[in-house]
Amino acid sequence: MAVVEVQIIPIGTGTPSLSDYVADCVKVLKKQDNLKYQLTPMGTVIEGELDEILSVVREMHEVPFDNGSMRVVTTIRIDDRRDKKLTMNGKVEAVNNKVDKG
Amino acid sequence: MAVVEVQIIPIGTGTPSLSDYVADCVKVLKKQDNLKYQLTPMGTVIEGELDEILSVVREMHEVPFDNGSMRVVTTIRIDDRRDKKLTMNGKVEAVNNKVDKG
Amino acid sequence: MAVVEVQIIPIGTGTPSLSDYVADCVKVLKKQDNLKYQLTPMGTVIEGELDEILSVVREMHEVPFDNGSMRVVTTIRIDDRRDKKLTMNGKVEAVNNKVDKG
Amino acid sequence: MAVVEVQIIPIGTGTPSLSDYVADCVKVLKKQDNLKYQLTPMGTVIEGELDEILSVVREMHEVPFDNGSMRVVTTIRIDDRRDKKLTMNGKVEAVNNKVDKG
Repeated sequence: MAVVEVQIIPIGTGTPSLSDYVADCVKVLKKQDNLKYQLTPMGTVIEGELDEILSVVREMHEVPFDNGSMRVVTTIRIDDRRDKKLTMNGKVEAVNNKVDKG
Repeated sequence: MAVVEVQIIPIGTGTPSLSDYVADCVKVLKKQDNLKYQLTPMGTVIEGELDEILSVVREMHEVPFDNGSMRVVTTIRIDDRRDKKLTMNGKVEAVNNKVDKG
Repeated sequence: MAVVEVQIIPIGTGTPSLSDYVADCVKVLKKQDNLKYQLTPMGTVIEGELDEILSVVREMHEVPFDNGSMRVVTTIRIDDRRDKKLTMNGKVEAVNNKVDKG
Repeated sequence: MAVVEVQIIPIGTGTPSLSDYVADCVKVLKKQDNLKYQLTPMGTVIEGELDEILSVVREMHEVPFDNGSMRVVTTIRIDDRRDKKLTMNGKVEAVNNKVDKG
């Protein structure tokens, strides 16, 4: 199990708004059965088996090209831990618990 | 107003757990009055005036050194838009609305 | 043709030095026939067909685990342009030419 | 001494080419006396005192706005090591030496 963040930026679109492009990428992700995901203000975080995640990220990277972009910059950040199960909620809770304790 | 994501990774800590280090960084952020922030599974997202954000991120970067680290890799991703006000909630909602519409 | 940067960070290694781990990752890359690569002070840049690159990056990501790490954070940044051929040299030269012109 | 990579992406420019924007950012960097830098195919790497670097990166981030952009996404990756002096050349050589040894 890994947690992966992806940020997909189409270049040269002519508009400073990116939400149309991002939404179309997220629609591809939404169709997956085995992956959990969460939108953040700076990207999309996905939890699941690493190869499945990378496969859908590869599909998501194509979306802006299908929508007319000529250039896409995609950043993928993988957090892969093998001594214990890594989950999106577990990661945030571990930090929050320690922050709350002061 | 900018939205900034920060991820701080201490190197060579001897343990695969990072939450102690991250929690101490977040405590520095929590003391700020003018900045909103949100923990994600892959980092911390901060909303506010860009120079104030960068100033606190600079402080956060020192925290693992204060806790004994000899090396820290910090990634700062700035999203700065000037034709309209950028907020953490606004960014996520803009995408969610478009995903929901199909 | 895409240009991709990869940065692989093992977590909790007990030493602030990363070069042993990085060198073992680069050895995997060196065996590829179809990919050009370049070491930078902050990562490894690879030029070639995107799916071939992602496949070797996936292999590189396993290397620190094979060397005993329990957690690895890997960042992959893809620059994929389809209206013209993107190369590592071409990208740097395009900028340098414009800087030199003042 | 830290080594920092910066990547500055203007959004919505109407053209898939970024080299004009990047060159203008690099010109700001070139004027600095105390900082060494190196262009890579995926960004600009800077070596020097961390606060000086962050100060010039802040200036570079403004350049695309001065050139008409309405939105800029800037990624700053800091590698800061305090048990030994970190240099751009030293980092690449440490890896190359180990790769060459097989």
